[in-house]
Amino acid sequence: MQKLDLIYEGKAKKVYSTEDPSVCIVSYKDDATAFNGLKKGTIEGKGSINNRVTNHLMSLLEEKGIPTHFIEELSPTDTAVRRVEIVPLEVIVRNIAAGSLSKRLGLPEGTKLDRPVLEFCYKNDELGDPMVNEYHIMALGLAAKEELDTIADYAFRINTYLSEYLKTVGVELIDFKLEFGRTGEGNIILADEISPDTCRFWDSKTGEKLDKDRFRRDMGGEKEAYREILHRLLGI
Amino acid sequence: MQKLDLIYEGKAKKVYSTEDPSVCIVSYKDDATAFNGLKKGTIEGKGSINNRVTNHLMSLLEEKGIPTHFIEELSPTDTAVRRVEIVPLEVIVRNIAAGSLSKRLGLPEGTKLDRPVLEFCYKNDELGDPMVNEYHIMALGLAAKEELDTIADYAFRINTYLSEYLKTVGVELIDFKLEFGRTGEGNIILADEISPDTCRFWDSKTGEKLDKDRFRRDMGGEKEAYREILHRLLGI
Repeated sequence: MQKLDLIYEGKAKKVYSTEDPSVCIVSYKDDATAFNGLKKGTIEGKGSINNRVTNHLMSLLEEKGIPTHFIEELSPTDTAVRRVEIVPLEVIVRNIAAGSLSKRLGLPEGTKLDRPVLEFCYKNDELGDPMVNEYHIMALGLAAKEELDTIADYAFRINTYLSEYLKTVGVELIDFKLEFGRTGEGNIILADEISPDTCRFWDSKTGEKLDKDRFRRDMGGEKEAYREILHRLLGI
Repeated sequence: MQKLDLIYEGKAKKVYSTEDPSVCIVSYKDDATAFNGLKKGTIEGKGSINNRVTNHLMSLLEEKGIPTHFIEELSPTDTAVRRVEIVPLEVIVRNIAAGSLSKRLGLPEGTKLDRPVLEFCYKNDELGDPMVNEYHIMALGLAAKEELDTIADYAFRINTYLSEYLKTVGVELIDFKLEFGRTGEGNIILADEISPDTCRFWDSKTGEKLDKDRFRRDMGGEKEAYREILHRLLGI
């Protein structure tokens, strides 16, 4: 399988078409951005770590019955995925207050939430990815009610599966961001990535941050944190 | 019925206890504030207009089967209401994009929404009344799921009743903010006010703003706009 045209370049990934119109190749980059692109940098080795971690977790979710875009890992940084139309929503699940939720609701970082919280943000850089609810989503025509119900069901199930699995490797899943896509047949499947770029991972014992917050907050040690996640999840 | 102790003073109203523990007296003020209290002023006659408009609209809603806190108008500015514990949510219904929704979602003011949009904001001045969804509300313990379902049902019904009624007096209901309370028996009823302070009213023909936006946006003519609403609704 070969890359043909570059059809999309995001902050951390490039997406190429292939000879098969239903298949794309995702190529992960080492580039890191935060705060809607205001902060830029590079985390050495991030591309290949995020590629492998994402594929590992998506395979696990497929086994649990969650449909994903994952087809086949082609190289350390490249993966064949099903071509989808991305639903323009960031789907966020939170177990413990951190980041924007802590600021917005005045909950100290680390506060356990009584139950998981689901949030939708409208993927729109110009508007700063504003939080929306299902009425906004339907009024804007971003997704249909049935699609939203499917997305919410998948998101909570993914949270359960990933939280349980990560506990076994000493990682607490604080919160994470998912993106979903529509296949040519109109089915909703999990797309994008699941990695230290898109999840908050805290060491279960020490609470140490093993994710992109180290970059966002200038804490240092981001390269080592990403490698630690790769090591705990894939044993490499 | 007489005012005893001042139990709450808000930006636009004072609330007093009475000899009956289940009854309060609300006293409307001419004071106007905007932008979370950053802008302050006075609109002459606003207190009595908002009192009468609120009571008129709550009576109409009671006839339609929506339970409200309204008991009896005592004077041009004072009304006896059922004492409730306020659910700390601003419940916003929108028919046409305006104000914060237009800014947040990039929809030009005046854009008709395909269907009404319901929003909840957490009433918390320190946090700037952040928008929340039902997961946040339950995680923060602000309201139970059943209460939220009741509130949503009432809010959409109120929107239907008020929109239809206001059309008959040449007023378009753009959006509005409600607050609900819990009675001693644990029932949800409509509380607070429904007035040019809490609704966007546009003249159906000219689109002229007949509400607090005239004050917020330094347009002038706010006194006349409030009087016009009183005149169209109560014929005085």
